[in-house]
Amino acid sequence: MNVAVMGYGVVGSGVVEVLAKEHDSIAKRSLQETLEVKYILDLRSFPADPNAAKFTTSFDDILRDASVQIVVETMGGLHPAYEYVLACLQAGKSVVTSNKELVAEKGNVLLRAAAENNVNFLFEASVGGGIPIIRPISQCLAANELDEIAGILNGTTNYILTQMIANHLDFDTALKQAQELGYAEKDPTADVDGHDACRKICILAALCFGTHVYPGEVHTEGIRALTLADVAYAKAWGGVIKLLARAKRGDNSQIEAIVSPALVQNDSQLAGVNDVFNAILVRGDALGDVVFYGRGAGKLPTASAVVADVVDCARNWGKNRMLLWEGARTDYVRDYLDSETAFLVRATAEDVPAALADAERVFGGVHTLTRDGAPAGEFAFVTPADTERALRAKLGALLGVKILSVIRVVGY
Amino acid sequence: MNVAVMGYGVVGSGVVEVLAKEHDSIAKRSLQETLEVKYILDLRSFPADPNAAKFTTSFDDILRDASVQIVVETMGGLHPAYEYVLACLQAGKSVVTSNKELVAEKGNVLLRAAAENNVNFLFEASVGGGIPIIRPISQCLAANELDEIAGILNGTTNYILTQMIANHLDFDTALKQAQELGYAEKDPTADVDGHDACRKICILAALCFGTHVYPGEVHTEGIRALTLADVAYAKAWGGVIKLLARAKRGDNSQIEAIVSPALVQNDSQLAGVNDVFNAILVRGDALGDVVFYGRGAGKLPTASAVVADVVDCARNWGKNRMLLWEGARTDYVRDYLDSETAFLVRATAEDVPAALADAERVFGGVHTLTRDGAPAGEFAFVTPADTERALRAKLGALLGVKILSVIRVVGY
Repeated sequence: MNVAVMGYGVVGSGVVEVLAKEHDSIAKRSLQETLEVKYILDLRSFPADPNAAKFTTSFDDILRDASVQIVVETMGGLHPAYEYVLACLQAGKSVVTSNKELVAEKGNVLLRAAAENNVNFLFEASVGGGIPIIRPISQCLAANELDEIAGILNGTTNYILTQMIANHLDFDTALKQAQELGYAEKDPTADVDGHDACRKICILAALCFGTHVYPGEVHTEGIRALTLADVAYAKAWGGVIKLLARAKRGDNSQIEAIVSPALVQNDSQLAGVNDVFNAILVRGDALGDVVFYGRGAGKLPTASAVVADVVDCARNWGKNRMLLWEGARTDYVRDYLDSETAFLVRATAEDVPAALADAERVFGGVHTLTRDGAPAGEFAFVTPADTERALRAKLGALLGVKILSVIRVVGY
Repeated sequence: MNVAVMGYGVVGSGVVEVLAKEHDSIAKRSLQETLEVKYILDLRSFPADPNAAKFTTSFDDILRDASVQIVVETMGGLHPAYEYVLACLQAGKSVVTSNKELVAEKGNVLLRAAAENNVNFLFEASVGGGIPIIRPISQCLAANELDEIAGILNGTTNYILTQMIANHLDFDTALKQAQELGYAEKDPTADVDGHDACRKICILAALCFGTHVYPGEVHTEGIRALTLADVAYAKAWGGVIKLLARAKRGDNSQIEAIVSPALVQNDSQLAGVNDVFNAILVRGDALGDVVFYGRGAGKLPTASAVVADVVDCARNWGKNRMLLWEGARTDYVRDYLDSETAFLVRATAEDVPAALADAERVFGGVHTLTRDGAPAGEFAFVTPADTERALRAKLGALLGVKILSVIRVVGY
């Protein structure tokens, strides 16, 4: 069976490498035929590459060649990836992608096109790199109502947070180190401000709850504002701060979804996930909690997930996997201010005992925290649980207090 | 599509319950038809059960009814489960089982029968309860050489060990508590002596490495001999003792496989797996380490895994999944004494400084450990890595020393 790879960057070249390395074992172990890369689409030229003869700069070469049955999209970005993928599906080719932006923005349209043309559109590598997560969730869904997902979905920010927690580097120093190690881009916005994690939780939420969620609908906060003081108070509380992406089945056919730093207890399965690793917790009614852990990025892990999807397309040729979700709905994602949470609050005041007594009264009891080396006038506390709206109103009612940071406390 | 359930115990009744609860959503979400339980096979009678009319005591009712296309085997034990399952496969019915003993002893025979009759034999629930592990491993295998698996595969022993570590209960007290809570059987042998974990690692090893492994070939040690002194020395070393089942690709087409207590570092993903939870670590060449975590037993988690397999059988009706492994081979499982490891050793001697100096010399350096409340004459140390055979020979060469316990140190 012939395969085309569109985009010869880190993941695309990894896919070609894994397909070559596993060429014989795929034929022997998983299929009764081989998978051959016939075209590689890239505008750049790679004259020294062993696959030089397979390169093309024209998408039409792939689209018009009926012998290409499976197309891998590893170009990234929304355009022209979307147009190319849609055209391939409509031409009766199965498509595998690692492009989370594409799936988060156009997943339901592309899945419908795949179903209508009796081919498959698979995207295991778009979330969690090499960690099998999309297919296990589909599998769990066959016998469970899934209620909740929470994940450390971005390796770059998790690396930075690990450096802040374990080695007491401040955010800027940790980011610089991550950039030097190649874990963060020169422009780290997509990672550090939570957009990457947001796209991934949109994909997982659509899969679990059956309705498309656009990234723009999900309240997203990154980790730029986090300080070592926050990390120290988290430790005093018995936890760590992680960038969590969360989605949860709510009332009235709504869901809750948010990406933000969150305070996780030390004995949580998510607390010990360090460095560039990812972890995804799925909560089902029959199943209880299941956690998937591994490298969420990297050339070969991600490529191996793409290749597993390619094998799946080949194995199920002529059979659509019935993976589908509905288009986005207005009022489907609940206002995050209506979600229940608790806050870790760091603040300053001229009269700390008076401010704490005030907080105690306003919140009906708070859990006060201390840290070594706190400057005079700083204090911190954890509030009881309430809606975010109510908590923020109460914070606003504190007199003579300057709020420095607010971090949500979660119960995983 | 009609389904029969053989064995109405904890898991079997859970399967009937989940199939009823998810009846409509399975039809809507996963299949274009419904799944109906037509027969329940059990020798006992359940007159008050809402499904009373479906009960039969005759296997032939199921075997001869061509309208039953999928059979669930939740009887447990090897006979007559094996004969029944084989007959069903040969009659062109797909079979789903949660019976680890059956898969560990007869997996390759039954998979071959399924392939020959173009049906499926699926067993997701036989390892890790509700945790999706069999299918994700098959998926990873499509694009990876898997090198190693290590798991906490038995919830009962993990509960007992957690009580010993966190609450300082001794083994007998922790076992009694587990029995009172229903986590351990009245006769706890299969769990406590490692046989249950052994069957599961045999299934995982067969799946990962392609050759059947009989439980009798795997060196298996349980947790009965563990003491709070061992737990304290593990803590002093910076780790915890877990019952680990492990399998690893070795040289000369051999594998290494063992079930035993093992000393795991605190920062390992396996160290924080507490109570009745299970976790399975899979190491692949492209993938790196992936860990799957969740409830390894329990009525509904296990039943949900069975039902997911039933849905998969229905969805892929007429298409064998090409899941196969070869029959067992002589000399395939390497003598565990040839495996490389390190030991945590606890011992007594009349002259401790002399004994430690002797150990230091014999092993070429040891890492000495201490604990509060150690009786006079007790000491403990961790050896450098070597083959188990060499380490045991060196232990035997220590003069005036009584070895109280030896625990393997692992590097996950």
